[in-house]
Amino acid sequence: MADRVYLDWNATTPLRPEARAAMIAAIDHLGNPSSVHAEGRKARRLVEDAREVIARGLGAMARRVVFTSGGTEANVLALSPGLKAPAGRIERLLVSAVEHASVLAGGRFDPAKIQSIPVDPSGVVDLGRLDLLLAGGPPALVSVMAANNETGVLQPVSEVAELVRRAGGVLHVDAIQAFGKIPLDINQMGADLVSLSAHKIGGPKGVGALVLGSGVEEPIPVLRGGGQERGRRAGTENVLGIAGFGAAAGAALAGLESDQARLGELRDRLEAGLRQVAEVTVFSCGVPRLPNTTLFTADRMKAETAVIGFDLEGIAVSSGSACSSGKVQPSHVLEAMGVGPAVAQGAVRLSLGWSTTEADVDRCLQAWRKLSLTLLKRSDETVLERF
Amino acid sequence: MADRVYLDWNATTPLRPEARAAMIAAIDHLGNPSSVHAEGRKARRLVEDAREVIARGLGAMARRVVFTSGGTEANVLALSPGLKAPAGRIERLLVSAVEHASVLAGGRFDPAKIQSIPVDPSGVVDLGRLDLLLAGGPPALVSVMAANNETGVLQPVSEVAELVRRAGGVLHVDAIQAFGKIPLDINQMGADLVSLSAHKIGGPKGVGALVLGSGVEEPIPVLRGGGQERGRRAGTENVLGIAGFGAAAGAALAGLESDQARLGELRDRLEAGLRQVAEVTVFSCGVPRLPNTTLFTADRMKAETAVIGFDLEGIAVSSGSACSSGKVQPSHVLEAMGVGPAVAQGAVRLSLGWSTTEADVDRCLQAWRKLSLTLLKRSDETVLERF
Repeated sequence: MADRVYLDWNATTPLRPEARAAMIAAIDHLGNPSSVHAEGRKARRLVEDAREVIARGLGAMARRVVFTSGGTEANVLALSPGLKAPAGRIERLLVSAVEHASVLAGGRFDPAKIQSIPVDPSGVVDLGRLDLLLAGGPPALVSVMAANNETGVLQPVSEVAELVRRAGGVLHVDAIQAFGKIPLDINQMGADLVSLSAHKIGGPKGVGALVLGSGVEEPIPVLRGGGQERGRRAGTENVLGIAGFGAAAGAALAGLESDQARLGELRDRLEAGLRQVAEVTVFSCGVPRLPNTTLFTADRMKAETAVIGFDLEGIAVSSGSACSSGKVQPSHVLEAMGVGPAVAQGAVRLSLGWSTTEADVDRCLQAWRKLSLTLLKRSDETVLERF
Repeated sequence: MADRVYLDWNATTPLRPEARAAMIAAIDHLGNPSSVHAEGRKARRLVEDAREVIARGLGAMARRVVFTSGGTEANVLALSPGLKAPAGRIERLLVSAVEHASVLAGGRFDPAKIQSIPVDPSGVVDLGRLDLLLAGGPPALVSVMAANNETGVLQPVSEVAELVRRAGGVLHVDAIQAFGKIPLDINQMGADLVSLSAHKIGGPKGVGALVLGSGVEEPIPVLRGGGQERGRRAGTENVLGIAGFGAAAGAALAGLESDQARLGELRDRLEAGLRQVAEVTVFSCGVPRLPNTTLFTADRMKAETAVIGFDLEGIAVSSGSACSSGKVQPSHVLEAMGVGPAVAQGAVRLSLGWSTTEADVDRCLQAWRKLSLTLLKRSDETVLERF
């Protein structure tokens, strides 16, 4: 697929060369990190080295990084009822309406104990409503993502943290889309629990981490039995995946500043080009967003048809989140922003990454010019053409 | 570590060349299997091909294979309270006393609802006691492993299944150590739920599967949110790991018969050699065992010292399970067999695999002859030598 242009980085990314090299180097390491012999100790070293890199990238302590099988498991582990909070035991969960499906599912909270925090029409968490929700009940675990996977919207995490702190609650931040794309520090965010995923930053699929702040109590483990991860997560470590995660994190963090600027420029070029062809709505374009994400629609566009059309033109794009197994459903993110289903069903996401080039953007725009002729056609025109 | 001899295959195995090749081939597949574009569909194909191989290897239906992050997650997913059984909803869990730590932890069962099934002095499940336990309460989920990870003992799974079936319960079989080493068929076993792990059969660490029999109800998911794995297990699939798992399973199953015979001979040679040097106890040697596993001790041997001694001689061996993060504790398996802590603390496990050679066995026996001079020394001799 050498001629393809991949613009679906928020779904999953190509492996970074550094991650690929680390994994090739680790692939023949045969030890179990829990074994005491030389092979075991060598595997243990790979895991601990990766843990250091990831901790450093988030300003956290290495021994507070818990490796998981991905972002979903990190989120489920984080959403642990009964945590000790400054105001007492956590009894309920407040999740922003635009969270990832794995957070909206509420982890191990009783569905009756989950409340939704609304967002404004730009997709930004409504801080006033959050404050009211916090005041209106027992100690809460609050889950607000750093950056939205569909729109790229950056949430005001520090302001959220301040409200949660004042209410004596605990804050979980799903930083899966933000980590490695914008600077993040667990203490500056004021987060108690932070979820990460390797395959959104150029690492392999199937590995992630939950990072614990220095003050928070341990979440109740989801996977129990073995003593791995200090008893926080049983099961033999995915050594190869963890080695790739560490290397990807190191590379992503090292290149963060330049990538951020470069991708922002490419994204602006892309959005300007989209608008040249048709009257395009770029969702959340008036608020701070990730530099790599464009969620857009145009009159009469159907996302399902557009994704297939782009694919046939050699461009991989998506309609919002990939996590619904290929089903095209109206996005809950756009719904929470007050966008009607007719418009939401036209939303196409273009997301860029470190290896995206100006030529890729231009190829996408070329396809867009071609596709727009059919995608944006009025239905009477389509009817006419059929005969 | 070219000169090392690795005899800790029950902890984790070297990658099979077939798995390594499949993973190298898959490493640059960048798609998310849930994405509809070409890259996504290609990743999906890798996952579904592996699913077919694993299903076939167990005589199961491909659509009843649920990929997980490993054996521990498969076990936790399997141990789901509230399952529908022929006799009604499952209300309790019966686990054999020699199960892996992740099964003993009981998954999502209330600890008060878990009962232990005793084993005889050879480590074989006591069928009479199981029958009494089944008769003495509401519908039960029974968890009995196919082969024990420490002793290699094969459990009478079909007989267990018959008792469970008659009592209207559900049977979970942890087949993690048995799969790929002895012939297994989910229907012949009479199992409703079967756990597998890739890294015990020459696949990578961090991937496993729960295989559902055709009659059993779906376990309640542990990881929820996305629609992956037919809603049974949310989270982007570990495509690389799954590709390796499929290739490893294919190779293990293809070579099963010849490996079984060859490893049995090597194991017998090993045990005969151990006995030539000292009076050695091989645990469970009078009952059917895996062809690759020897758990042994000798008078005055301390496992911790022995493992380190073998390691310094270039031989990787272990003291029972690796899943307790390097801690050397008396084995719960031996305890359940009625072995006292003093003897149990001397138990050393030697486990072989497809690439183990006669030369490896001889190297191990050479080390044993050398180590036995110090390991089996009476304490008064040790004292004498110090001065």
